Amino acid sequence: MQRIGFIGLGNMGGHMARNLLSRGAQLVVYDVDQSKLETIQSERGPSALKIAKNPAEVASDCNEIVTMLPTSSHVRSVFVDKFGILDTLRQGSLCIDCSTIDQSASIFIAECVADKGSTFVDAPVSGGVLGARDGTLTFMVGGNDEAFQRARPILEMMGKKNVHCGKVGSGQATKICNNMLLSVQMVALAEALNLGVKMGLDPKVLTSVINSSSGRCWSSDTYNPCPGVLPNTPASSNYEGGFGCKLMAKDLGLAQNSSTQFKVPTPMGSLAHQIYLLLSAQPKFANKDFTVVYKMLEGMTTESN
Amino acid sequence: MQRIGFIGLGNMGGHMARNLLSRGAQLVVYDVDQSKLETIQSERGPSALKIAKNPAEVASDCNEIVTMLPTSSHVRSVFVDKFGILDTLRQGSLCIDCSTIDQSASIFIAECVADKGSTFVDAPVSGGVLGARDGTLTFMVGGNDEAFQRARPILEMMGKKNVHCGKVGSGQATKICNNMLLSVQMVALAEALNLGVKMGLDPKVLTSVINSSSGRCWSSDTYNPCPGVLPNTPASSNYEGGFGCKLMAKDLGLAQNSSTQFKVPTPMGSLAHQIYLLLSAQPKFANKDFTVVYKMLEGMTTESN
Amino acid sequence: MQRIGFIGLGNMGGHMARNLLSRGAQLVVYDVDQSKLETIQSERGPSALKIAKNPAEVASDCNEIVTMLPTSSHVRSVFVDKFGILDTLRQGSLCIDCSTIDQSASIFIAECVADKGSTFVDAPVSGGVLGARDGTLTFMVGGNDEAFQRARPILEMMGKKNVHCGKVGSGQATKICNNMLLSVQMVALAEALNLGVKMGLDPKVLTSVINSSSGRCWSSDTYNPCPGVLPNTPASSNYEGGFGCKLMAKDLGLAQNSSTQFKVPTPMGSLAHQIYLLLSAQPKFANKDFTVVYKMLEGMTTESN
Amino acid sequence: MQRIGFIGLGNMGGHMARNLLSRGAQLVVYDVDQSKLETIQSERGPSALKIAKNPAEVASDCNEIVTMLPTSSHVRSVFVDKFGILDTLRQGSLCIDCSTIDQSASIFIAECVADKGSTFVDAPVSGGVLGARDGTLTFMVGGNDEAFQRARPILEMMGKKNVHCGKVGSGQATKICNNMLLSVQMVALAEALNLGVKMGLDPKVLTSVINSSSGRCWSSDTYNPCPGVLPNTPASSNYEGGFGCKLMAKDLGLAQNSSTQFKVPTPMGSLAHQIYLLLSAQPKFANKDFTVVYKMLEGMTTESN
Repeated sequence: MQRIGFIGLGNMGGHMARNLLSRGAQLVVYDVDQSKLETIQSERGPSALKIAKNPAEVASDCNEIVTMLPTSSHVRSVFVDKFGILDTLRQGSLCIDCSTIDQSASIFIAECVADKGSTFVDAPVSGGVLGARDGTLTFMVGGNDEAFQRARPILEMMGKKNVHCGKVGSGQATKICNNMLLSVQMVALAEALNLGVKMGLDPKVLTSVINSSSGRCWSSDTYNPCPGVLPNTPASSNYEGGFGCKLMAKDLGLAQNSSTQFKVPTPMGSLAHQIYLLLSAQPKFANKDFTVVYKMLEGMTTESN
Repeated sequence: MQRIGFIGLGNMGGHMARNLLSRGAQLVVYDVDQSKLETIQSERGPSALKIAKNPAEVASDCNEIVTMLPTSSHVRSVFVDKFGILDTLRQGSLCIDCSTIDQSASIFIAECVADKGSTFVDAPVSGGVLGARDGTLTFMVGGNDEAFQRARPILEMMGKKNVHCGKVGSGQATKICNNMLLSVQMVALAEALNLGVKMGLDPKVLTSVINSSSGRCWSSDTYNPCPGVLPNTPASSNYEGGFGCKLMAKDLGLAQNSSTQFKVPTPMGSLAHQIYLLLSAQPKFANKDFTVVYKMLEGMTTESN
Repeated sequence: MQRIGFIGLGNMGGHMARNLLSRGAQLVVYDVDQSKLETIQSERGPSALKIAKNPAEVASDCNEIVTMLPTSSHVRSVFVDKFGILDTLRQGSLCIDCSTIDQSASIFIAECVADKGSTFVDAPVSGGVLGARDGTLTFMVGGNDEAFQRARPILEMMGKKNVHCGKVGSGQATKICNNMLLSVQMVALAEALNLGVKMGLDPKVLTSVINSSSGRCWSSDTYNPCPGVLPNTPASSNYEGGFGCKLMAKDLGLAQNSSTQFKVPTPMGSLAHQIYLLLSAQPKFANKDFTVVYKMLEGMTTESN
Repeated sequence: MQRIGFIGLGNMGGHMARNLLSRGAQLVVYDVDQSKLETIQSERGPSALKIAKNPAEVASDCNEIVTMLPTSSHVRSVFVDKFGILDTLRQGSLCIDCSTIDQSASIFIAECVADKGSTFVDAPVSGGVLGARDGTLTFMVGGNDEAFQRARPILEMMGKKNVHCGKVGSGQATKICNNMLLSVQMVALAEALNLGVKMGLDPKVLTSVINSSSGRCWSSDTYNPCPGVLPNTPASSNYEGGFGCKLMAKDLGLAQNSSTQFKVPTPMGSLAHQIYLLLSAQPKFANKDFTVVYKMLEGMTTESN
């Protein structure tokens, strides 16, 4: 029976840890929020799951450790701080960080882990909370071949697809490049559909032309931002659920950090970042799915004035 | 044998007129450039093709008239000026304008044509010069059902697909909405691929992840802007051929005219317009395929400095 | 006693006409809104002011005609339509158009006026409704020297400053270039002040450093967008009065029309246009002074959430 | 005779150190580049200037230490690394960091310094290399009152103006807010002047109108980007000298880091960052003064094509 360390039981990590347990793994878990630890233990019992007092205790007890944390500084802290993973990490261990963080942070941690004779892979996910719950996540993995092969069976307990993107840091790079592209496409599609409607077009007709033309994209054929064009989208359910504006703003901020660090121009990605900061600053949009940009562009037709 | 008027024998129109002739139509043609008229007549002979002295002479001789002109003001002039189409247009005629122009110009001309007891459809095309030559254009048609049905057999002689987008002006609206979306996607994809490369990714690996993820789009799977990722793209042939930056700038200018007229925000579309104006202002980019934006973003790696 | 034609008695034109009357001119006036004509006549009496039935009647009765209208198409219509100025314009007349419209429209009208043996100057204003009321407008004038000298005494009855900017169309060009610059500065200043506040600065201290540094500008030292920094600004009065977001969006639309026409990149001006379209699309901002962009950037701190 | 530590003898720091020496201070200096240490010592002799082997040796020998370094990570390294300042910093010392770096880095270092019982002020400068050479820099200082008063006489040996901007980190915040604003104004002014010229205006006339209107700013009246409008500007000397595009890109990157960290929208500042990244990526612009944006916008008029 495999004994795996797991740090970070938030919206995503909680589901991922439960999937590991369901597929037979034994866990040593840690979270700063004590109540999350108690909840999961009450569900599963101490034979399946041991609670650690800090990350160091996780690392002293496991050869494989999964981390799922909100920001670069949380990850840095869990590894580097006193009572952190690096304090007690056993030689030959594998650290799998599923957090979406700065590539530079991943690379820095990987070097620290290597100094201890162990291996690190970055493995950020796509698929959201529902994918985490249903075990259908996609992992974008950065690390050497051996590490990727070793991480694979663990990742397969939590998701349905693993992509080996390249060396350490490649998972982060792949994820933010894809999400930057996605966000720009979504805003542009919302602009095109809204402009089309104002110019007299039926958004379903316009979408069908786009879908068989040079503008076709996942956003138009699968996750359309205009209410009523596709069923079962956030747009058709008042923009509830899905991937919130603040999360998109966070990923776009990581992309901008890299744009700045590497001195690479990303004018569209940068404007998308600003638009999601603007949406995140308005209460009526901040917690909606990121397709809600359609409503901001549409303007006052939905409000009295 | 159908007698069709045809005005505008430029890069696109020349091919379209030849396809009408090849499929058996008899044409009455006009162009401001006398040499173009002489060339086509020397190819086909006077039995297939009659040269008119001005648009009015075309209209006095045909019940169906196709126009293919570069800008709104050319179209306005061909219809409204002295010796224009409206001077002699016969009741019950059909005018098919294949130009890509301001929707407001299409609607204005349609009203003028209706005042003469005739019908107008806007039918801008996608497919470029190669599509025009090979008769594989797509027409996006705006007009009433009857007019669309009447235009159809003529359009089918020049292309392979007709889409009825809605009432008059809908063809223009559909085309500029799609092209605005396309241009934004292309710039954003170029940003994502270039950023990815600078962050250590292989652009083929990144493209393959994008193509099976939420960033997938026609630009990534069919017309990739990064050299070497796909064969047979302008990007893999030094950005020769294809759809030039200046033409994209023109279509984006039309989209911005509509954004201004309808007071509809299109921040991404507007930035794409600016980027294509910048590219069009630099000699080394202006006449290349619009995917060349990748090279501008990539920067000085290709130049000595 | 000078007899002047005046067409367009709106928010600006009404005050301007009254200033001409107060300074002793006799007017022949026209407006599409009959009630405006009745109001001004009831104030002044028929000896000072004659009401015309249409623009042609104004032109048949006066050698100097002032127009103050909202858009390019209004101006085109007042000159070119049936019963328009051109129908009856007397040779040797002077037309002074104070509207802010497309340069291309000004140049077109000027040519039509020249065809009648008369002269046209474009003379858009800055100073707003208060400047119109108080007779303190600035006129930016485009036209030849003779026309500028002839227009001058009339303009001086309505404003305090005339600038001769160059040939016909130069008034429009000057105004939109200045206003485009102003709008960008205002948004950027709002960004800088808001960012500074979030980073812990006192906006008054930051403003004072800016005012003695390379960021100083009219927006920072005279029309500051941050509430409380300067007294007597719209920002310090809940953004009431001043120059509304919709009017700024209009001027920025004109700048974008010129950017498109001349194929000149204006990325900042274009983004400002988009931002003022976004503001104009939100009821809580649309009718406020254009400095209200500060509130949109500031975000949810002013709202419960 | 005051004994001051000085770390970082680059383009700016070299001049600043020499000014301290000229005004009678005795220095203990360190730089990673040994040749810079040798040069300054050969100029001044060992009685005025002592060379340290590392930052720790500087700190063990002085109660006041000035640092002038290129990036956040250099500053972090000079303070925190082995043989860094913190290793040996004496209680009651004052550290004055004149580098332009992330506010978060300044605040972090200030806390480390406070832990040693000493005090830190951030004091980034404006005035460039010429200001450093001539001792005419402006210092924007963040720190408590006592620290500001203590730093003052030292700063006065190197510059002509000190502004107390607020608590620690306020110097950095003030500088990047001002520079972000400046860069946006400069690009927008270049756009306005270039558009005006293309619309037929004389750039000197347009500038003079702007300078007495709502668009006036330091950029237009002191540092105009259009060649020939003002004498003695980089624009009038082929954009040589001045403040380079890459340095502006660096400051704008810091502003974007703060925009991301504080989740504050800065759409104009972000676009300016992208434009300076684009300029920095083109060899013909990268090392020119930042007003060279005018040439990029102007386009191919200066090149054959």
